[in-house]
Amino acid sequence: MKIESVDFFYLAMPEVTTEADGSQDALVVRVAGGGHVGWGECEAAPLPSIAAFVCPMSHGACRPVSDSVLGETLDGPADILRMSATVAYNSMDLLQAAHTWSGIEMAMWDLLGRARGVPCWKLLGYDAAYPKIPYASVLFGRDPEGTLQRAKDMRSRGFRAAKFGWAPFGQSLAGDVAHLEAAREGLGPDGILLIDAGQIFGEDVDAAALRLDAMERNRVTFFEEPFHGSAYRAYAGLRERVKTVKTAGGEAAHNRHMAEHLIDFGRVGYIQIDCGRIGGLWPAKEVADYAAARGVTYINHTFTSNLALSASMQPFAGLKDHVICEYPTTLKQLAVDMTSSHIVPDANGEIHVPDGPGLGVKINEEALVQYRQDVEIRVAGKLLFPPQSAA
Amino acid sequence: MKIESVDFFYLAMPEVTTEADGSQDALVVRVAGGGHVGWGECEAAPLPSIAAFVCPMSHGACRPVSDSVLGETLDGPADILRMSATVAYNSMDLLQAAHTWSGIEMAMWDLLGRARGVPCWKLLGYDAAYPKIPYASVLFGRDPEGTLQRAKDMRSRGFRAAKFGWAPFGQSLAGDVAHLEAAREGLGPDGILLIDAGQIFGEDVDAAALRLDAMERNRVTFFEEPFHGSAYRAYAGLRERVKTVKTAGGEAAHNRHMAEHLIDFGRVGYIQIDCGRIGGLWPAKEVADYAAARGVTYINHTFTSNLALSASMQPFAGLKDHVICEYPTTLKQLAVDMTSSHIVPDANGEIHVPDGPGLGVKINEEALVQYRQDVEIRVAGKLLFPPQSAA
Repeated sequence: MKIESVDFFYLAMPEVTTEADGSQDALVVRVAGGGHVGWGECEAAPLPSIAAFVCPMSHGACRPVSDSVLGETLDGPADILRMSATVAYNSMDLLQAAHTWSGIEMAMWDLLGRARGVPCWKLLGYDAAYPKIPYASVLFGRDPEGTLQRAKDMRSRGFRAAKFGWAPFGQSLAGDVAHLEAAREGLGPDGILLIDAGQIFGEDVDAAALRLDAMERNRVTFFEEPFHGSAYRAYAGLRERVKTVKTAGGEAAHNRHMAEHLIDFGRVGYIQIDCGRIGGLWPAKEVADYAAARGVTYINHTFTSNLALSASMQPFAGLKDHVICEYPTTLKQLAVDMTSSHIVPDANGEIHVPDGPGLGVKINEEALVQYRQDVEIRVAGKLLFPPQSAA
Repeated sequence: MKIESVDFFYLAMPEVTTEADGSQDALVVRVAGGGHVGWGECEAAPLPSIAAFVCPMSHGACRPVSDSVLGETLDGPADILRMSATVAYNSMDLLQAAHTWSGIEMAMWDLLGRARGVPCWKLLGYDAAYPKIPYASVLFGRDPEGTLQRAKDMRSRGFRAAKFGWAPFGQSLAGDVAHLEAAREGLGPDGILLIDAGQIFGEDVDAAALRLDAMERNRVTFFEEPFHGSAYRAYAGLRERVKTVKTAGGEAAHNRHMAEHLIDFGRVGYIQIDCGRIGGLWPAKEVADYAAARGVTYINHTFTSNLALSASMQPFAGLKDHVICEYPTTLKQLAVDMTSSHIVPDANGEIHVPDGPGLGVKINEEALVQYRQDVEIRVAGKLLFPPQSAA
């Protein structure tokens, strides 16, 4: 089949705040070809990502993503890999291209899976999909009492594992210790406790290391993104100073190399991949293979809709021992409404990759209308978006 | 002073082709504050870069670049560093932000230099600026005869050094050998010959290594970007197989870390930095210090206007031994017309950082009108660009 159209849906909540909550807006992608459609989601700033699809060419190595996609043949996985390589080469100087392409690539696997009637993880080469233990992914409370309540709440909702992240973590050592104690208390002694520092320590290994005692005392399983996503030396420095806690990172990786380098040079114990940024499902699967071969645990990074969650589970669905899985639990309404099917924990508190074809997630097209932000882009008087056939 | 405005000028030639020539369009930035203006240039796709400045916030770590710039205080270099850190943190999930910020940062140094009456290299901490040997940066001819003529032409124009790049290099071994022989013949036995493969070998070390014999026989000084900009392992692999030729890369680095990793893990002999991508002058200066301390040679990457050329010379102006300098010689007319002052080789065939304040380059405002591509961006009915005061 030929790729006939790629449509973008920019959705947003009526109010978007500075909270570190990525579910306040969304960029949904629909790819159509051969009588089928597939859906994907970029974990990215919507407007620049749309611009990277439609922008005028700057030169041969700075072309819009659309040039490598529209009208191309999509008959199997090899075609997706071919387009991926073309985007990487022809858009090498267009930085945002990786984020734009991620949602398109995801939608192509969905389309291919629907066309063939098989789930994406099979297309990626797995024979089986194993259940995952979802960890509730939440922000810290404003104060330790808020964190305690949030931890108790997650525990009462049946979660065996929870991750607390972002501000106010990093603002003071005493405060951080109090939040860590509160999170452990709220989760109970047998809960799996994870911490996400949201890059707050920049490259300051000493500042991050000051939190290690309290983390190890409270049996934190991993300490995520203490540093700038590219600060491999800082990651490696912290690795030298941990006893039991593992380091984790990788969500900022916008190609496979970056994730592999964080493993090789940053020596993380957990590699966290966002399929909506790294270029879609295939590079994520490559990272999963790379990690598994090196004793590093692969985990998804997901803070948006269940479409993104399903996509993020596919690349490690077949890795039985890589068992914990990020599971957003405080989604804004748009991310809840975006899909009419949802991934929910079973009686054992485990989640499963949807068993329908493709990503197995049903899009709620009414939400695409309700939350839609119309975008109009003109350059030199010419309407570049929306495409003129859809205008 | 306060940053009062940041204006973008998207310029383009009437026709933009797939040639790997980055001077076919330009994104010029003007920053105004305290009665002064400064100019910069993003080496980036203009439309997505503008979108990254004006887009609606997605969440606290995915804010538009404008949020970290407009209304901020700019009284000295520390303010530029502070804003740089704010952009990196508040726009960490907005991939294109680094390219947008690069032109703004550059313009801020220009503005500060003009306000103080000193050149940027002094603000960066150098006591002296040393002359550089410009290498003519050109594309390969379509065939070896074309490359021979181009090499002779550069030699006759007084260049002691020339770099040949991009297609058809990499298309066939026999063709590449013929181009290498032609380039050496045209430059003469004492010319400095440099080769830029434009990432054509992806990660294929063996394919790149097949060219080494002909390169060493023709005394190539460096072999630039054989691989994807993030393929550090491939760079390190090729390094193991060279005898006399050095490897070079780094132009894709969109932060300081990436360039430092290419030195540490990719083991390049030359590190090539584009100030219009890495985040402006300061991270480039940090990379220059890092390289110098490790015996790696710093070079600018510049394929656009003389404004970008001056900016790219500042971070290594004071490094006396880092002497060769990329000098675009086949600029499209817009990049020539963009500045009314030009950097030209002296009687010794050397070039000098302009001695005026700031970047020392005079912008030709008529060219900003002549080549201007009007951009109009609306989201949810609201005009985001041009800013409403300028509309």
